[in-house]
Amino acid sequence: MLASNPKLVSMMQSRLGGLIGKSSGYVESLPAPVRKRVAGLKGIQKEHSKLESEFQEEVLALEKKFFAKYSPLYEKRAQIINGLSEPSQAEIEAGEEDDDDDDDEKEDKDTAAEPAAEDANAEAAKGIPEFWLSAMKNSSLAETITDRDEGALKYLTNIRMEYLDRPGFRLIFDFTENEFFTNKSITKTYFYQEESGYGGDFIYDRAEGDKIDWKSGKDLTVKIESKKQRNKSMWPQQVIPNYLHSH
Amino acid sequence: MLASNPKLVSMMQSRLGGLIGKSSGYVESLPAPVRKRVAGLKGIQKEHSKLESEFQEEVLALEKKFFAKYSPLYEKRAQIINGLSEPSQAEIEAGEEDDDDDDDEKEDKDTAAEPAAEDANAEAAKGIPEFWLSAMKNSSLAETITDRDEGALKYLTNIRMEYLDRPGFRLIFDFTENEFFTNKSITKTYFYQEESGYGGDFIYDRAEGDKIDWKSGKDLTVKIESKKQRNKSMWPQQVIPNYLHSH
Repeated sequence: MLASNPKLVSMMQSRLGGLIGKSSGYVESLPAPVRKRVAGLKGIQKEHSKLESEFQEEVLALEKKFFAKYSPLYEKRAQIINGLSEPSQAEIEAGEEDDDDDDDEKEDKDTAAEPAAEDANAEAAKGIPEFWLSAMKNSSLAETITDRDEGALKYLTNIRMEYLDRPGFRLIFDFTENEFFTNKSITKTYFYQEESGYGGDFIYDRAEGDKIDWKSGKDLTVKIESKKQRNKSMWPQQVIPNYLHSH
Repeated sequence: MLASNPKLVSMMQSRLGGLIGKSSGYVESLPAPVRKRVAGLKGIQKEHSKLESEFQEEVLALEKKFFAKYSPLYEKRAQIINGLSEPSQAEIEAGEEDDDDDDDEKEDKDTAAEPAAEDANAEAAKGIPEFWLSAMKNSSLAETITDRDEGALKYLTNIRMEYLDRPGFRLIFDFTENEFFTNKSITKTYFYQEESGYGGDFIYDRAEGDKIDWKSGKDLTVKIESKKQRNKSMWPQQVIPNYLHSH
């Protein structure tokens, strides 16, 4: 849960970092030889922290290794969503098998007669319409998405991630031609500090988003007076970084 | 934060697990060809989950590899704490260097004249008295430790961890001879499920603690009527599992 809010995690880390150095007066109250032993333990703790940083580096390398294994699956997903290819029969069956495990009410639905007109219409539908908008509305992002945002998010064709050469990652949002902006992709880049924190963790630094080239009168970050909005727009919000989940 | 409460994490995981299969009716409302594509994506998601389990297995292997690297440091710590050896000059200096970075008020303390009698007394002190009790009182466990618990926790000489052959780990609490119980060590073992959860995470199953052989009239889990206690005892509590922090 916390991991989905890098800003908060970073704030807590820096507050905890502040506490680590702070003295409660306890150590200072100890006799000199005991104090020396405590200093010795601190020295040993430093060696431990160095190892912990190495561990986090290796976990990151492992994440990157697996990201390369996940990527062909993400590519297949994008192809299916955007109607560029169909899932294989084996993939469909594996997915339907999954459904059978869950519930029993599905049987009815599968065998239920469907309006023929609707089906004919559907054959024409490309891929899975509004997949990403639906995914977002089913996620913790839901309450940050306004009705106006939805108008633009309908055109979202893919969400991709890439690692940076330094600690951090980039989210890439791909769009089809739309009436809101001219960008083909909008990216947001999350930078982490070069120096790892206490326990070897990567510490969130800052995020930078692309400038959005809004078409005239279509800027969704401009407030409309006549309408109450839950949130200005999703763009300035933090998007869940996958990256953090495994840290 | 959440990671320190395996019970809660497990509960949330199983509730989320329940939701994953649940239908909002949305998918069922889609035309048949689109539904087939969604099924295909589910099939692909299964391949993704398999890879995620592999990833978690490799992270665990990495944890074990680093645990072997940390162990000599833990052994040194135990030796110093229990007065079996002294830290090296280099270790002391590395630790004192750390202090210098933090504050400036330390200088005064280091040069302050100390009562000679206290120092002489201290030379005789073995290791770092009550190190683990102090560590616990400086941790999130603090509020679960009653004054009566402290009487026994003073005798704690080491806290160790070991991995199980199956998913899980064991905490080992070593004690010196004391008036409360005859156990030399008290262990608590945390078992995780063999099957990994959604996203490949290990799922907490249950914990088993050793029977404590209390000396007559010394059972700290027996309530004393005349005294209000914050908590019965720390033993039935969950002890922070290091293991979970990196998951």
